Formats: sequence, structure tokens, C-alpha cells
Amino acid sequence: MQYHFSDRISTLKPSAIREIFKYAADPSVVSLSAGNPAPDAFATKQIGEICTDIFNTHPIDALQYSVTEGYPKLREFIRDYMKTRHNIGRDFDDVLVTSGAQQIMELCAKVLCNEGDTVIAEDPSFIGSLNCFRSLGAKLKGVPIEPDGMDISALAEALEHTPNVRFIYTIPNFQNPSGVTMSLEKRHALYDLAKKHGVMIVEDNPYGDLRYEGDNLPNIKSFDEEGIVIYSGSFSKVIAPGLRVGYTVAPAEVMKKMVVAKQGEDVHTNILAQMICYEFMTRYDFDENLAFLRKLYSRKAKYAMELLDKYVVPHGISYLPIQGGLFLWCTLPDSVDMPDFCKRAVLEHKVAIVPGTAFLCDEKGSSQCFRINFTTPSDEKLEEGIKRLGAFAELVLG
Amino acid sequence: MQYHFSDRISTLKPSAIREIFKYAADPSVVSLSAGNPAPDAFATKQIGEICTDIFNTHPIDALQYSVTEGYPKLREFIRDYMKTRHNIGRDFDDVLVTSGAQQIMELCAKVLCNEGDTVIAEDPSFIGSLNCFRSLGAKLKGVPIEPDGMDISALAEALEHTPNVRFIYTIPNFQNPSGVTMSLEKRHALYDLAKKHGVMIVEDNPYGDLRYEGDNLPNIKSFDEEGIVIYSGSFSKVIAPGLRVGYTVAPAEVMKKMVVAKQGEDVHTNILAQMICYEFMTRYDFDENLAFLRKLYSRKAKYAMELLDKYVVPHGISYLPIQGGLFLWCTLPDSVDMPDFCKRAVLEHKVAIVPGTAFLCDEKGSSQCFRINFTTPSDEKLEEGIKRLGAFAELVLG
Repeated sequence: MQYHFSDRISTLKPSAIREIFKYAADPSVVSLSAGNPAPDAFATKQIGEICTDIFNTHPIDALQYSVTEGYPKLREFIRDYMKTRHNIGRDFDDVLVTSGAQQIMELCAKVLCNEGDTVIAEDPSFIGSLNCFRSLGAKLKGVPIEPDGMDISALAEALEHTPNVRFIYTIPNFQNPSGVTMSLEKRHALYDLAKKHGVMIVEDNPYGDLRYEGDNLPNIKSFDEEGIVIYSGSFSKVIAPGLRVGYTVAPAEVMKKMVVAKQGEDVHTNILAQMICYEFMTRYDFDENLAFLRKLYSRKAKYAMELLDKYVVPHGISYLPIQGGLFLWCTLPDSVDMPDFCKRAVLEHKVAIVPGTAFLCDEKGSSQCFRINFTTPSDEKLEEGIKRLGAFAELVLG
Repeated sequence: MQYHFSDRISTLKPSAIREIFKYAADPSVVSLSAGNPAPDAFATKQIGEICTDIFNTHPIDALQYSVTEGYPKLREFIRDYMKTRHNIGRDFDDVLVTSGAQQIMELCAKVLCNEGDTVIAEDPSFIGSLNCFRSLGAKLKGVPIEPDGMDISALAEALEHTPNVRFIYTIPNFQNPSGVTMSLEKRHALYDLAKKHGVMIVEDNPYGDLRYEGDNLPNIKSFDEEGIVIYSGSFSKVIAPGLRVGYTVAPAEVMKKMVVAKQGEDVHTNILAQMICYEFMTRYDFDENLAFLRKLYSRKAKYAMELLDKYVVPHGISYLPIQGGLFLWCTLPDSVDMPDFCKRAVLEHKVAIVPGTAFLCDEKGSSQCFRINFTTPSDEKLEEGIKRLGAFAELVLG
């Protein structure tokens, strides 16, 4: 049988990260290519207790069909929490629980974009979102990212000259892959530009709670008096990613359409996982859990930067210091062939990093960068991995 | 803000069933409109034990990111089980675990159809699938269903005269909503027609294990030597729908594209739920569980048909006897305005049934039918509901 695939899928490549993962599965390889929480970040005891209680007291609720909008108690909790803590949510907004924040991206593109319409995104940006937009036939227009966030004049120009822009996709805090945090000024400027052009903003904030230094900045959604921002939150980095629970605070009119689309995707999100998130947030001290995670990751982030300074920077590779998140973004000198460097790093030197081209809006674009994750490997593996990278850099760059 | 929605979503209405559900939430209403398993169908004790064990022995596996294809042990189990039990799966096939079988429909349409391409479906058919195909811009071409399945000559004609048909969607066993089971002859005829026209088949089989009478018929996928059938299975009716775990056995080449699309939808299916399904299937006697479910539902099906014979049929409403599944399909005499009948049934007589128009491929089409579910209500509620329906029918039809 000669299969005919849709145009939107035919052009989509499996994530380059997955290719790297194949090599990274080799036990002799140190993987700095993942984006997973540390295994010791999981509150396994508490989550186990919650499960036992649910099955002892109201098991049917965890097993029967539920409503598409999400577990009512969790929705109410999120509504209150986001309003109280982050000034997110107005009367015109509503809350939808999703199967991970990834599904929010899918729903936004499905609901807001016709095929051929454009999504503006930071360039580079999270490959999962970019591929998701592509898989629904959206075009991507990249706006370069600077150390304080999106290049606002390039954004203004893109909005001026690109037809049918449906939304601007941004990760303002500790962006994946660049680690960059958008300044307050740029958050306002981005909001004002979107408002001016009647374009929506999808604010993806999986890492916002993982700040290790500096003060929290207000989320763009907290300015939103116009109903133009779709906020995307996730429990993946602060409870557990395997649960696949995300949530959006979005204008109710948009959310209603997302609900109709979600009915056709998975009917509703796994209800046991939603109950676990609700119980975890309300039964235990969530702030204490966040403080624990920040301490754990902050130490690892510092350690990773020290190791880079010691082993890698002396050979001409630079990196952007970060204030939070899971990733470090490194830049090779122009003389080096970046894709070849990443390939040889894993094949010859047994350290897996992710080539920057994987994160570009234009898949044919070029990049001198690569991404490192420091949360998944143990300290020993992290040191070994960065040492190997340094040794290889010395070989190539002297 | 004036929101602009995509064409594919703008035309999509929230499921009519959801409207009925709103009324059905009134405690004075007897709901025969759902499609839920009976509350006593759930093996709560065993599932609770499994959860406790998972969190005692390998909690991180249940909480960390996992692979898009599915929990490896569950995939292997499904591969063996489907091959051994149902002769499903050839060397060219592979297994993908999904977030409910609903996601399989979404992935099929996304991967196989461009906007404007056509999906052929039984008419009436499962509204969740029809809406899902619509939400990806596919056109629907309905083929009438007869008491032994799809009208094959109408199917042949549709394949002959409809451009860009990408797949035929069928529920061969105890179809939703009609309850019809496709004969063996028609299964072969459908397969042969699809083969002749180079069109794929999506075989949706959520109810296949719930046969109460007669012999099992081979699934269409069991004939598939050409790699043209995508088989869709689900744990929703045989373990628990709240877990949202389905699986497809599909040609590997197609499955690879589905994996790429699934990455963009939810990365992977909730891993705890996948582990629960695997442990449930391997640790307990699954056949014994199926026998228990068949006994439970078979009794309820018989009871519902007896009640219809006693209270409803005498007033001129007919129904199709069923051999399995969750639904009964009733037909009103031509003199009755069906949508008005369903509306008055719930508003004035406090019994919720689903109007047949909800399940049509052409949303503007007409129907004299309505759907009844007998698995969710208790025996008392079932009797009360069908009595009310009978009293109303007497009022309208004499």
C-alpha cells in the first residue's frame, strides 16, 4: 500500500531531539539533552498517599467519565490560586484543564488558525510547540530573542508586514531553549503591540515557579484587561510530568471553542491525575514544595555554570547565565560547524547535547548554539558530561 | 476583542448530547442519555491495589516523562494479546498507546486528511468521531446502516463518486448509536472495496468484548494482509474510561506519522494510567473480568428490552434488538416530530434520550430515531425512565 499523508504531517520531521535521545540511550553516553525534572524532585510519598486515599474513599470518581472542562475542584482551585497569587484571570476569563500544557498549544492552533495563517514565535523556541503549530498547517514567523527577551522592533515589523498573524507565542520566563527571561518593559511592549494589531498572545509559562535568583516579574496575562492573552500553566515541572496535567486561563469565549476541540481529542484529561494535582496543591504545603525544588535546581544550575566556566568557556564557547529554568544555552565560535560538533559530541565523545537548529522557526536556518539540561543528570554525570564537552572543545578549538 | 476562529472550529457545534446532559443533570430527570459504564463495573479494589504497589515499588516510572509510543510493557502486551486472541497485527504493523480511543480518531484525521478531503462513515455514527473529523476540516460522507451493517452498494457508490476519500470509519460491533453488528460477509466486502479503491479503514472497536449473545465475528483488521486497516481499541469499557487509555494496531509507516502528531498533542499518555492497564491485564484474570461485565450488562440489556416491549413498543415505537454494547436504537413513527419528542421527553416527562440527528454525517439531515443507554442507570431508574417514555408515547401516539 502506498500511503498518502496529509500535507501538514508530510512536511513535519520527528523532533531532532528524539534522534539525539536514541544515541543518549547508550549507557556509555552522558545525556545533557533531556528536559526532565530530577528524579529526586518528585514527592513520591505524598502522591502515593493521595492515590491510596482516593481509592479508599471515592474510587468511582477517579475511574468514570468526567467533563471536558476538567475536574471541577481543580478548576476552582486554579482560578483562585492564579487570581490571588498572580493577578491572573478577569471576569471574562475561564479555566480549562488539559492533558499537559502541550495540548494547550494544539488547541490554540486548532481554534485560532486556518491552514496558512501565521504564528509569531521567539526564535529559537520550544520545538514541541513549533511542531505542534506546524502539524495544524500554521506558518511560523520567528522573531529573534535577545538577552532580555523578544526583539520588540523585529516583532513590530513582523506584525506590520505579515498577513494573517493569529497569535504571538512566547515563553517569557527562562525560555526553552535560550534560558532568557523577558524584561518587564518588553512584556508591556509585547502586550501593547498585540493589542494594537488585534492579535492574541499565548503565554507559555512552564518554568515560572523555578526562579533561583532575582525578583519575579509579572506575567503578561496579569496586564490583560482586553481578553487577548491565553495563559498556559503546567504541573509537569512542579508536581510530575508523567501525570500530563496542564491548565489554561483564557477568555471564556476562546475557551469554549477549545473545549469543543478537546472533546474530539481526548474527551477529557485523565481524571485520577487531575485529582492527584488538586489534592497535592490543597493537602500539602505547595510553597514548601516549590522552595524545595528551587533549592535543588538552583544548586544544580550554579554547579553547571561553574563547570562550564571551568571546562568549556576557556575554549571559546560562551553561554547565557540564567536566573531559573532547566536549560543553559551555549554558543560556539563562528569557525565551528555546529551540527557536526553536536553529532561528534555524542558519537565520539559520548555526551549528548541538542543542536540549536532544532529550535528554529525556519527549519533550514542556521545556528551556532546548543542546549544543555542540568536537572536530569546526577552531579557526577553532569561533571563528567561537561568535562567531556570541554575535552572535545579543546580538540576542536584549542 | 472580536475573536477570529478557524473555519474548522467555527462550524463545529458543541455536541447535542452535551445539551441533553445539561437537562439530565436535574436530579428529577432519569438519564438514559449517557454512555458510561455502570458504577459497579469498576474493579476499584484491584486498581487501588495496583496503585499502592506502583507507588511502593517504582513511583518514579509513574511520574517522569515517558515515550510517545506508550509504556513499553503495555505495548508488548497489547501486541501479543491482539495477535493471539484476535489474529490482529502482522509484521508490518505496530502498536501505539493513546489518550483514549478518541485520540486515535484525531490522529487518523490529522495524519491522513487534508482539509476538504472526505471520510466515509456509517450514518448514523459516533458523534465524538464525526466532530473530531470535522474539527480537522474533513468532509463527511454518510453511508446508511442496515440491520447487518453498512449498506455495501451505497458504500461502493460513495467510493466510486466521491473525490479524495481518505478512509472509511466503521464501528463493526454493536455500533454507536444503532447497536448494529456488521455481518461477516459485509466485513469482507468492505475490506475488498477499500483495497480496490486504495482507501484505508479505521475500525473502531470499543464494545467488541461486550457481546451478550451469538458468536464473535472476526475483526476486519484480522483480514488485513495489505496494511490498509487501522484498528482502534480501548480500555474505557473494560477497565475504566476515566483512565483515558486506548491503543491502535496500525501499519508502522502510518503509526510513525501518528507518533509525530501525538508529540504535538500531549507528548505521551498519562503513564500511571498505562501502568494500571498493564498490571490489571497481567496480574488479574482479565477473562474473568470480561465474563463479569458481560453478565452484568447482558442482564441489563435484556431487562431494558423487556421494558421497551412492555411500555414503549405498544405505542408504535420500534427498536433494534442487540447482541451487545451499551445502546438501544429506537424509531418513532413518521407522524412524530422526533426532535420535539426528545425535547418534550426531557423537559415535560423528565426522561433524557438522545435525538438521532445528533449522530448524522449531514448535520442538516433528518431522523426518526433516538438512542437509549441502559448501562449507566440502576434497574429502578431504568424502569422508571422507560415507563415515563411509555407514558409520553401513549400521550403522543395513543
